[in-house]
Amino acid sequence: MFDKETETSTEVASLLTRRWSGRAYDPERNPTPDQLESLMEAARWAPSCNNAQPWRFLVCSLQESPDARQAVFESLWELNQKWCAVVPVFIVAVARTRFVEPDQENPWAIYDTGAAALSICLQATEMGLMAHQMAGFDAASVQSAFDVPDVYRPVSVITIGYQLQEEAIPESLHEMERAPRTRKNLDQIRSYGDWGQMSDG
Amino acid sequence: MFDKETETSTEVASLLTRRWSGRAYDPERNPTPDQLESLMEAARWAPSCNNAQPWRFLVCSLQESPDARQAVFESLWELNQKWCAVVPVFIVAVARTRFVEPDQENPWAIYDTGAAALSICLQATEMGLMAHQMAGFDAASVQSAFDVPDVYRPVSVITIGYQLQEEAIPESLHEMERAPRTRKNLDQIRSYGDWGQMSDG
Repeated sequence: MFDKETETSTEVASLLTRRWSGRAYDPERNPTPDQLESLMEAARWAPSCNNAQPWRFLVCSLQESPDARQAVFESLWELNQKWCAVVPVFIVAVARTRFVEPDQENPWAIYDTGAAALSICLQATEMGLMAHQMAGFDAASVQSAFDVPDVYRPVSVITIGYQLQEEAIPESLHEMERAPRTRKNLDQIRSYGDWGQMSDG
Repeated sequence: MFDKETETSTEVASLLTRRWSGRAYDPERNPTPDQLESLMEAARWAPSCNNAQPWRFLVCSLQESPDARQAVFESLWELNQKWCAVVPVFIVAVARTRFVEPDQENPWAIYDTGAAALSICLQATEMGLMAHQMAGFDAASVQSAFDVPDVYRPVSVITIGYQLQEEAIPESLHEMERAPRTRKNLDQIRSYGDWGQMSDG
């Protein structure tokens, strides 16, 4: 995928600054099974509360499981379906909402699954793949289509694939794909020693 | 920090496999202000739902804000206080639990904050620092000590510092610090095309 400038005030690991969430996928290039396994290995080693590893991943690819991929596609909000038509692989990130032992709510299940999902996106970046997490999907429809047990909750869908060559990116996506990355200022998200002036927005 | 073997079935980005959560901190080496800013920059560029960036970070260091650091220390569960006595920096990860516009619950606030917190840990690894996230602390006590507005929720405390030279690691920590990294098998956390045999534990 092409680089986007990431304006950092200090040096940051390149794997972190190179990651961004593109939308223009190449319909003619599929990630290999080995690449998908590397994404899963990356997730596997994320940290978690009590090492409970509450994350689960349903990997649905056009090549290996087109019906499953279609079921995930149909769960997406229309806004996302628009750019996801040719996405070769969807990964549904699912969190086990309770600890196993003792059997009680795990308030960090979602937090830890977010970390494992970011690991997938970073590993995708490492391999020249593009990953984009979506919250805009119908979790109940995924839960039902895949008979996901009740103790688990689908929390995001991650698109995986190769980016289109830039000259092939359709007009409808080009502006968004080229838009600069934006973030709050550091002063809005961190403070030293007290709550300070951290943004309430 | 010293390396621990991470047994992966496929290749994974070294930044991800080198990260682990140590407990034996060197009381005589402090992270520099520039290093702390790099951790914050790393967090800043994490992805989030609607780019809402719900994460906030309270950085409390022995050098710059000893009282604040002490307040965080006192919020820790006793189990964690045992190994945290000499930790030079605590970062409290806080999530804004509601979107700003529209003002409604953000169900991904915790998920996204988990991703930003992992970015901090990875950036620490990149700089030779050690980071360890803890869930075992009293969020209400942090909320009150720092007058954290109600819409925000403290979700974890991250320790930051340098690891002790191995020969200096006290007996009480040595076994834990040298213990191999363990995770579920891949078959327990991912499945292709259906829910399959994914672990219910």
